[in-house]
Amino acid sequence: MSLQPDLILRARWVVPVVPQGRVIHDGAIALKDDHIVAVGPADDLLAQYEQTPVEHYPEHVIMPGLVNAHTHAAMALLKGVGDDLPLQRWLGERIWPLEGQLMSHAFVRDGTRLAAAEMLLGGTTCFNDMYFFPEATIQAGRSLGMRVVAGIIVIDFPSAYGSGPKEYLSKGLALRDHMRGDDLVSFTLAPHAPYTVSDELFAKVATLSGELGLPVSCHLHETAHEVQESLEKYGKRPLRRLADLGLVNSDLIAIHAVHCNAEDIEMLARAQAHVAHCPHSNLKLASGIAPIAQMQDAGITICIGTDGSASNNRLDLWSEARTASLLVKGVSGDAAKFPAEQVLHALTLGAAQALGLSEQIGSVEPGKAADLIAVNLGSPATQPVFDPISHLAYCVGPEHVDEVWIAGRHVVAKRQLVAAITAGGSSDWAEPLSLWHNQVGEILSGGSRP
Amino acid sequence: MSLQPDLILRARWVVPVVPQGRVIHDGAIALKDDHIVAVGPADDLLAQYEQTPVEHYPEHVIMPGLVNAHTHAAMALLKGVGDDLPLQRWLGERIWPLEGQLMSHAFVRDGTRLAAAEMLLGGTTCFNDMYFFPEATIQAGRSLGMRVVAGIIVIDFPSAYGSGPKEYLSKGLALRDHMRGDDLVSFTLAPHAPYTVSDELFAKVATLSGELGLPVSCHLHETAHEVQESLEKYGKRPLRRLADLGLVNSDLIAIHAVHCNAEDIEMLARAQAHVAHCPHSNLKLASGIAPIAQMQDAGITICIGTDGSASNNRLDLWSEARTASLLVKGVSGDAAKFPAEQVLHALTLGAAQALGLSEQIGSVEPGKAADLIAVNLGSPATQPVFDPISHLAYCVGPEHVDEVWIAGRHVVAKRQLVAAITAGGSSDWAEPLSLWHNQVGEILSGGSRP
Repeated sequence: MSLQPDLILRARWVVPVVPQGRVIHDGAIALKDDHIVAVGPADDLLAQYEQTPVEHYPEHVIMPGLVNAHTHAAMALLKGVGDDLPLQRWLGERIWPLEGQLMSHAFVRDGTRLAAAEMLLGGTTCFNDMYFFPEATIQAGRSLGMRVVAGIIVIDFPSAYGSGPKEYLSKGLALRDHMRGDDLVSFTLAPHAPYTVSDELFAKVATLSGELGLPVSCHLHETAHEVQESLEKYGKRPLRRLADLGLVNSDLIAIHAVHCNAEDIEMLARAQAHVAHCPHSNLKLASGIAPIAQMQDAGITICIGTDGSASNNRLDLWSEARTASLLVKGVSGDAAKFPAEQVLHALTLGAAQALGLSEQIGSVEPGKAADLIAVNLGSPATQPVFDPISHLAYCVGPEHVDEVWIAGRHVVAKRQLVAAITAGGSSDWAEPLSLWHNQVGEILSGGSRP
Repeated sequence: MSLQPDLILRARWVVPVVPQGRVIHDGAIALKDDHIVAVGPADDLLAQYEQTPVEHYPEHVIMPGLVNAHTHAAMALLKGVGDDLPLQRWLGERIWPLEGQLMSHAFVRDGTRLAAAEMLLGGTTCFNDMYFFPEATIQAGRSLGMRVVAGIIVIDFPSAYGSGPKEYLSKGLALRDHMRGDDLVSFTLAPHAPYTVSDELFAKVATLSGELGLPVSCHLHETAHEVQESLEKYGKRPLRRLADLGLVNSDLIAIHAVHCNAEDIEMLARAQAHVAHCPHSNLKLASGIAPIAQMQDAGITICIGTDGSASNNRLDLWSEARTASLLVKGVSGDAAKFPAEQVLHALTLGAAQALGLSEQIGSVEPGKAADLIAVNLGSPATQPVFDPISHLAYCVGPEHVDEVWIAGRHVVAKRQLVAAITAGGSSDWAEPLSLWHNQVGEILSGGSRP
């Protein structure tokens, strides 16, 4: 067995995320097959591996790919159909009627391909999805070389995907078995929300999570209405209800967690549960602002999700995390909170931990998968550079991501999708768009559009 | 005199901003010299002006250039030097010591050129600046073809620029006389803040504003500390103090206006004063969140500023305005507030009105200057398009701006600065950077950096 790496990536800065705040000036990363074999100063690695070819990124930071902790990727096809509406009207008047008529394997495949293209081009290498037809989500993500965490959807109503939760679970678990050979695909159990999942179903999810070692992604305490309704129906807050059903533990990813009081925060912290914070969606739907400063003070690890395109409307983790940090400062009155190095952690390793993937991804360390991005700090928006970590947190956007590798494979080169280039320059995401555009347009114009 | 336009710009959509919400599908704009002569459906304009050459932007929206209502452009050279610090420490430990040692005509010129490059490439065509050496600000902005509103700085301490407010005023007014021939340069009086300007000086500014018809830009009610200090020193809130000195009228641009109670808002509304809202800076420095929903309900016209790069750290009006809209929704609990069409108004005509420039810029109307941008909606992040105004408010970023014209002159072409191209491909903003980078680094490492 040769110990010779295949490739060395050299960059002006390497930000490995572990330990937090570390910057390697003139750094390098040695890759072999799909993983990282060494990271350190370029001088050391170049001397150690003299025969290995080197790619040099003289204006760039190389860091771990970003991990989107919560999205509904296929909803990229519904981008902008329900602006300036609160959550209940947004769901009831736009999203659910459209989904009811459009839902299919093809819709999810084409929508996810569009979303994956946007995410990859912005430096997101992995996303935690929750939607119907997860096999289509996986197909689309993998077609562009992306790492996918597919949600096994659990929801108490039928859809084109299946007759109800029993079928969703059996299909999802069969899909998980089917995908065992693909290291770039993993799963969560994804009960939709406390108002769409019964006690019996939540208990079943808890059992499965324990047996199979699967994380559980669930929309939780997103709106005041949700909490109020639960108090009326169950006599307890949703989080308390989930705890009583055995779901509040270190496998839980509480998505949104906007309306959390001190007791909720203490319960999440004690359980070492994770919070997927989606500030743009929460603001846009007027759900509110999650008490992230208090959660961080309590020791809860925060990760960042964009939510779906229909409620955001950018799948841009850079601005999502920047807003998260700025909101914590502005709301708490303490500008030192959620500093730049924690922002990078939330975007990478924090999400990997929540998804049970921290052995594989989330930092630049030997043995981990080579999910890496090269961020160009040479433009007017990112010059001068006194501290690259500050710029990654507060200046950088998707437009600065030049190169992306996933499991060692080069998937974005010079800001172009390699999958599209190798397919002869055609844009896979673009071709089916006009079809879906027309269909959505027809439904909207015949229906409830104001 | 020929009535023949020089050029017709045709685009998939034209969004003229006036009236709010209007979208012209397959629209066109006819230009002659520096101004717009017609706007309407492409079919009409092409028939009317058969001989005029046409440039076609088939995936684009053409709309007015964005107007940055508040910045300190030269501070681009201090981007990222004071993250995660509150306003008073940020000023006292980082900004003022650095400015004290670095301030010069060259510093302002080079910093502003860097900022202007960032702003232009993102679709900002005009900025309202407040800084020392405004002649350097003008020189730098105009060198890239940009429209500049220069602040005549008034502040009660000496600097490299002058011995104090008397000299600042005389230099600023002389500069204004000197620039009279340049249609792309205008001025505001720019008293820095209630805590750095005396009653006597504010009264002098009020007199000059009335005599010369100049808007007055002033940092106002930025922090709770500022309001408290004013109550202790003057026995009244800063806004009340300015009102008593004759400054609260339709010429006033209240920058920040974070800590405003109901009485303050009523006073601003009654006076038809303007508010330059800078949400990212206010959050980053933990100043708070301005009560924009209440201001809009009271009829105050909001415009958007990035503030300087040292407290933001992006001169990106798209994300600034998106955050402004999302914050209003999230804080007020009403997702319908600050809808997309009002976001565009704030970014363009709202700011033009505040700056006294609404006869010249801020909308696509015959007779106005041709300050225009072409925004590409053909990328994965902006597809599909159901409503271009929604995408401009909630999806678009600087990365989607392909073309920029200012007073009819093409200043950004295919995402490149034309000034840099015509100079042989060199980047004017890049050359002096390493010099300033080294100087800032030396001051920081020898000083108070943690």
